[in-house]
Amino acid sequence: MQKIERPKSKQFMPEDAKRVFKGVVFDVYQWDQELFDGSKTTFEKIKRADTVVVIPILDDGRLLLTEQEQPGKEPFVGLPGGRVEEGEDVLETARRELLEETSYEASEYILWEAQQPVSKIDWAVYIFIGKGLRKVNSVNPDKGERNLLKPVTFDEFLDIAYTKEFDYTEVAIKLLEAKLNPAKREELRKLFSPK
Amino acid sequence: MQKIERPKSKQFMPEDAKRVFKGVVFDVYQWDQELFDGSKTTFEKIKRADTVVVIPILDDGRLLLTEQEQPGKEPFVGLPGGRVEEGEDVLETARRELLEETSYEASEYILWEAQQPVSKIDWAVYIFIGKGLRKVNSVNPDKGERNLLKPVTFDEFLDIAYTKEFDYTEVAIKLLEAKLNPAKREELRKLFSPK
Repeated sequence: MQKIERPKSKQFMPEDAKRVFKGVVFDVYQWDQELFDGSKTTFEKIKRADTVVVIPILDDGRLLLTEQEQPGKEPFVGLPGGRVEEGEDVLETARRELLEETSYEASEYILWEAQQPVSKIDWAVYIFIGKGLRKVNSVNPDKGERNLLKPVTFDEFLDIAYTKEFDYTEVAIKLLEAKLNPAKREELRKLFSPK
Repeated sequence: MQKIERPKSKQFMPEDAKRVFKGVVFDVYQWDQELFDGSKTTFEKIKRADTVVVIPILDDGRLLLTEQEQPGKEPFVGLPGGRVEEGEDVLETARRELLEETSYEASEYILWEAQQPVSKIDWAVYIFIGKGLRKVNSVNPDKGERNLLKPVTFDEFLDIAYTKEFDYTEVAIKLLEAKLNPAKREELRKLFSPK
């Protein structure tokens, strides 16, 4: 497994930024920022726990999506994943979330993409591809979620990028690019093929 | 001009959610959320000022992008726009930001898209197309920004969706869809043509 580095934010936050609020999901940081004309103003940025997404590849070549229901949210087609808990490394999170949400374990994890999608939020998202899947127990999701498993083919997966309910913009962009560019599509098809 | 409704968030926040922090950019709200098993937990959501983006169409058919530099951020190819100030309606924001960042006024604004891109942030983004442009004075940007104007053709604009520095994911997805689908592309070309 490659060493996983945390992706950088598009907006720099200095080391000495001060935490001015600690919430249950979000913390708020502030610092004095010098502007181009030399004057100063207070800049603000949010921190939240990093999250991990897993794209599980079944041995028959299908991808294992989930249909998720969360309180106060419309049901949406998603992927297993969730937040990195205190003391966990991102690969441990990937393993735990895959197991909790699908009852599968993967023998191989490939890091497909890692980025900070929102410049004003200090928040990294890691997208793994999980291969060599093995079913281990019955689904035991987070109390705040209801999941149904929804296996789809690679070509169906590319089409799902379009739909309003698919909630992973960063993944959607990569899938649309793959649809546009045949070379990228074949590269991706290979990456998403079973072990 | 059509009446502009504020788009709904993908994640519901009750009316009586309590503001627990007020920052310079972000406010934090909390509420008790009942889970599927009947137990309760604290949910948290961020509020920030809505923002407006303008896609200005020059009379020669080119689109007026900007190359922006903001303190603590890599320079990026962007579009005029900014946050809705207290008491302003979104169309006023569009007019003000277009003028401040490009020195142009538009005689017509078409709302192309309005959405809340991040489910855990109460934050709406309105994307306008501005036509009938007229130069009115020299650029007088926000002290926190430096802008260069960068006119591009419609086809160049579609290609910019790919680049890492283009910071509008929601726009990028629509441009990629237009590249994929010739009917959508021609529809968009027409929408983006001068008055």
